[in-house]
Amino acid sequence: MSFTVGVDFGGTNVKIGLVRPDGRVVELRVVAAASAASPRTFLDVLHRVVAEWQAAHQGRLIGIGVGAPGLIDVRQGIVRRLVNVPGWRQVPLRRLLERRFGAPAAVDNDANAVTVGEWRAGAGRGARHLVCLTLGTGVGGGLILDGRLYRGAFGAAGEAGHLVVDPRGRRCACGGRGCLETVVGTLGIVRAARRTRCVAGRAVTPEMVARAARRGSAAAKAVWRDVGSWLGVGISTLVNLLNPDRIVLAGGLANAWGLFLPSLRETMRRHVLDGSRQAARIVRGTLGPSAGVIGAAAIVWEQAGER
Amino acid sequence: MSFTVGVDFGGTNVKIGLVRPDGRVVELRVVAAASAASPRTFLDVLHRVVAEWQAAHQGRLIGIGVGAPGLIDVRQGIVRRLVNVPGWRQVPLRRLLERRFGAPAAVDNDANAVTVGEWRAGAGRGARHLVCLTLGTGVGGGLILDGRLYRGAFGAAGEAGHLVVDPRGRRCACGGRGCLETVVGTLGIVRAARRTRCVAGRAVTPEMVARAARRGSAAAKAVWRDVGSWLGVGISTLVNLLNPDRIVLAGGLANAWGLFLPSLRETMRRHVLDGSRQAARIVRGTLGPSAGVIGAAAIVWEQAGER
Repeated sequence: MSFTVGVDFGGTNVKIGLVRPDGRVVELRVVAAASAASPRTFLDVLHRVVAEWQAAHQGRLIGIGVGAPGLIDVRQGIVRRLVNVPGWRQVPLRRLLERRFGAPAAVDNDANAVTVGEWRAGAGRGARHLVCLTLGTGVGGGLILDGRLYRGAFGAAGEAGHLVVDPRGRRCACGGRGCLETVVGTLGIVRAARRTRCVAGRAVTPEMVARAARRGSAAAKAVWRDVGSWLGVGISTLVNLLNPDRIVLAGGLANAWGLFLPSLRETMRRHVLDGSRQAARIVRGTLGPSAGVIGAAAIVWEQAGER
Repeated sequence: MSFTVGVDFGGTNVKIGLVRPDGRVVELRVVAAASAASPRTFLDVLHRVVAEWQAAHQGRLIGIGVGAPGLIDVRQGIVRRLVNVPGWRQVPLRRLLERRFGAPAAVDNDANAVTVGEWRAGAGRGARHLVCLTLGTGVGGGLILDGRLYRGAFGAAGEAGHLVVDPRGRRCACGGRGCLETVVGTLGIVRAARRTRCVAGRAVTPEMVARAARRGSAAAKAVWRDVGSWLGVGISTLVNLLNPDRIVLAGGLANAWGLFLPSLRETMRRHVLDGSRQAARIVRGTLGPSAGVIGAAAIVWEQAGER
């Protein structure tokens, strides 16, 4: 059996998956991000896992892809820097991977990987103009335009978390103000929940706010209603600008789909132009927590097409 | 001499230009929109003008393009409807033109035409990822992505005037709320000028507000500063999302460039991500009032490439 390895390089842990050509994840290994603190330790861990799999499956490794949060020079395969991982600066990861594993490799930002994963093997299949939002601690995004991943001038395109939805709003981690991420990212949700006291205790998480809403808390429901409204503002802008035929909401917060969808749709009814309304089908990502791994494997073939 | 005819179909008048292959306008005729109230009268006027030109220049008509404000089915060359011109419904204009003139024809929306014109022959030359905003009574836009005009699923892409910049803001003509057009379109500027009383009289125009600002009126200057700030919010969103290498500001209001550019740039410094900042050069359209005519001529060849 031939297989691709997809690596989803997160802030707290790193997921390594053995992905079949049809996008199914056959094996999944999760290691602490600490064991990938430097490129060298990362490559060692990866090498060990891949060797095990090759032995266990008598498989042939045909490609290896990495999706990581940070500044990636996709064309050259260089990790310029990673968010939250100081040991990674100017790492020529693609070359290192190809040398170590003797197979084609690809490096891309994590949101692009999820986008390609959902497009090739998930909720985005068959779309020609797709916008994917990854909803989590940060809010990322990726664009499939005219049937291919759109990167922009410097590979920085797709930053849907930094659509400016509320110019007079709160400061964002990016240095800007009123970015979509400030109101629909994890921090924004926790902040709103604390303000309304809909969840007790200090360590509030979006999951707790979702549970409270499902148990009937009006305040918690209102938090999610606001999330939907802000998402609706951002997505309306995306739709008016790009006239996509599919919008995929992925990432952990998409689990609260039922809680924010009504107000999201209502907001879009208010803001989206007639000409773009019908085309834009909103769906929930179907790859769940494996989206990053499946996407990282998929970008190997995506990038091969771009070169 | 071979030439293309470009038609810029406006709300008050229709400009017809004889455009040379290098984008120069050799002849320009402006007729009242009333004489183009129906497709038949439009074709008659056009036919007369073109016949004159063919005689005068011993020229050969090699293409004819029309840019019009409204809902255009570009693929089929059908004008679904025009803004402000009730006599135009479901008109198969491309077919009518090709039959009447025996040359390849193209029909597109006016903002796309300006975008292609500036890209091919104006301030956008050489760009690979370009956003063009047409600033006037309405605010339109067009996108060149990866070196070609991006249309989206239904040809409705590029509506930059309907980026939602102020969700709690004013109602827009489109039915939405807080669209960029509500604050930087002619009406928004006139409204702001009236509010601050920086211009006397009832028939206020943006030109009057610009003159007042240049004469030193602090209130008029503030109006343009606000225009720049709102443009900055919208353009920041565009830049974070699309990472373009060029942004062209075209249309009549771009004449006030010097009055709104400082606050536009300041707003962008606040909102644009590091990764996209350097690439995005903002320039003023160079084709002036001929942009629509030159662009309409250019889309003939653009669409020929798409088919």
